[in-house]
Amino acid sequence: MDVSHQAAGSPGGDATARCRRLLEPALREAVSALHPWGAKMAAHTLGWSDADGGPLVAGGGKHLRPTIAMLCAEAVGAPPEAALPGAVAVELVHAFSLVHDDIIDHDERRRHREALWKAYGVGPALLAGDSLLALAVDQLTDAPVAMRYLSRALIELVRGQTEDMAFENRPWTGPGEVTVQEYTQMAAGKTGGLLGAAAAAGVALGGAPGLAEPLWTMGRELGVAFQIVDDLLGLWGDPAVTGKPIHNDLRRGKKTLPVLAALAPSSPLAEARPAGRAARELSGLLASDALDDDEVRRAAGLVIEAGGRTAALDQARLHLTTAMEIVVECLPEATELRDLCLSLVERSH
Amino acid sequence: MDVSHQAAGSPGGDATARCRRLLEPALREAVSALHPWGAKMAAHTLGWSDADGGPLVAGGGKHLRPTIAMLCAEAVGAPPEAALPGAVAVELVHAFSLVHDDIIDHDERRRHREALWKAYGVGPALLAGDSLLALAVDQLTDAPVAMRYLSRALIELVRGQTEDMAFENRPWTGPGEVTVQEYTQMAAGKTGGLLGAAAAAGVALGGAPGLAEPLWTMGRELGVAFQIVDDLLGLWGDPAVTGKPIHNDLRRGKKTLPVLAALAPSSPLAEARPAGRAARELSGLLASDALDDDEVRRAAGLVIEAGGRTAALDQARLHLTTAMEIVVECLPEATELRDLCLSLVERSH
Repeated sequence: MDVSHQAAGSPGGDATARCRRLLEPALREAVSALHPWGAKMAAHTLGWSDADGGPLVAGGGKHLRPTIAMLCAEAVGAPPEAALPGAVAVELVHAFSLVHDDIIDHDERRRHREALWKAYGVGPALLAGDSLLALAVDQLTDAPVAMRYLSRALIELVRGQTEDMAFENRPWTGPGEVTVQEYTQMAAGKTGGLLGAAAAAGVALGGAPGLAEPLWTMGRELGVAFQIVDDLLGLWGDPAVTGKPIHNDLRRGKKTLPVLAALAPSSPLAEARPAGRAARELSGLLASDALDDDEVRRAAGLVIEAGGRTAALDQARLHLTTAMEIVVECLPEATELRDLCLSLVERSH
Repeated sequence: MDVSHQAAGSPGGDATARCRRLLEPALREAVSALHPWGAKMAAHTLGWSDADGGPLVAGGGKHLRPTIAMLCAEAVGAPPEAALPGAVAVELVHAFSLVHDDIIDHDERRRHREALWKAYGVGPALLAGDSLLALAVDQLTDAPVAMRYLSRALIELVRGQTEDMAFENRPWTGPGEVTVQEYTQMAAGKTGGLLGAAAAAGVALGGAPGLAEPLWTMGRELGVAFQIVDDLLGLWGDPAVTGKPIHNDLRRGKKTLPVLAALAPSSPLAEARPAGRAARELSGLLASDALDDDEVRRAAGLVIEAGGRTAALDQARLHLTTAMEIVVECLPEATELRDLCLSLVERSH
């Protein structure tokens, strides 16, 4: 077992920066296979340039998924390079999903810049998303185990996105209401699948395919926690930090966990005062067709009063704990991976 | 070598019907993994139901790509079932590409029905397209050679679509004009890649992976011929048969081969009368920003006068001949495959 890289993997090492150094050249190499127009749109999406093709000094995402893939490979004794095809694939699928999500949700801003469809039009952006997905699949044609998890993640991703979209047409309360259980399944698919594929591909490419299945499960649990934190940031995050406008989810009736938890009759807080009153007022507010800015702010406040914020954070910690138990059992030495996962619940963007 | 199926593969056997019998249950099985809403949209796309979910007696496509995959497997001595995962995958990728194409091109009709985005909205249709692609990839996770060609086809497909879209912003004549060579490369990617993957996956799954590469090339050549015929049908086909409105391509400045060939200075007909006069009038017409119905009809007539229709048909036959030479060399017994490919250039829809 090659342990020469273990020093770099010790706590305090900057895993994300280490990942970025390996990832970026490989991502640029992958994107160079595209039509120049597609490559330009990919550069916008990946944070390498603005809409005019000019370079950006900072930008890009947190590279969470590729970092997980590389840390998982390291944790089974392989150099991080072993996970590179998987790391590139999951980052490309993530980019693909953001591009298509922004079209679906009519979100005009992403990562402090114009969303791709806003900068280039819906048709070109749609196609750019497709091309990122095509490149992702191409990374793993020689790695069948990793490919199997990438494929599973894709199916879970679109199933979760479809559920999420279908939830918007369902009521907050009463017959047909979205349950916390349904939310959890949606988040495990929409957000967890790709985290699971990152971890599973990492260990598989690192030479331990037998660990792929539990790490897939780990990623799905982590994904639920991650999605809940995303929901919380959408309600109470700082748009200057998150790069996205606040309260969008509330405006469009997106079924986020803090609000579901605030309204859930099974919530331990629902019958207590003032939580019960807050939940009833919230329910009334959300029943109206369109909320103005004041009503949206009022609703966000009522979610806190009704205990939705606390309940959502509790749920996030619960799923994070399950994920961490799997990491500790399967990859006991993976302290950096644990630190990274734990940081996801305390993040501000 | 099992030859028990060869009787069914004899000329006169209905390859498409035989393929459909195997394909449809496998496609339905694949689609059943989707969210019910996604499955409903897939059923609309695949021609199994109308927008309300009611069953359709007739419908669906020609199953050209899966039929090619199965005939290729048979031609190397395997039963058609061997090619089934590849057949399902290429049909799903084809369906995915139609769904996204209609969004990109704002085409409201497809196969005599509403396009999916028109029936369900852009966001849901976009996601339904993504889910078809995810299912396609999932078919081949245990067949690495076939997967490699599917992946190559995906990259070629989006590159070709991007080129096609970029062509719309380029002039018909003068500096920056689209050349016949550029058109051919676009069509080989956009239309040929998936036909190549169908053939390559067919022989690979049939047990002859060594034939995959020449059959990939065969499919790309066939694709160019197929695309040219599509262009011809878009100009002179019967909308009642093709299921698509006529002259759409001309209206939006799509760079189709008949028009490019009519305008090309290298065309042997360009300097002859009345072809030269027709080409000049056509060029003048196309230079105006938007054509009315009369002008579009006039332009289509001028394409014929300038020799564009004849030249395009010649090109289609040329690429078909190259494709057929590969079939004869690699799969000399594949008479049904040859008949199918030849029929593509004589088709009316």
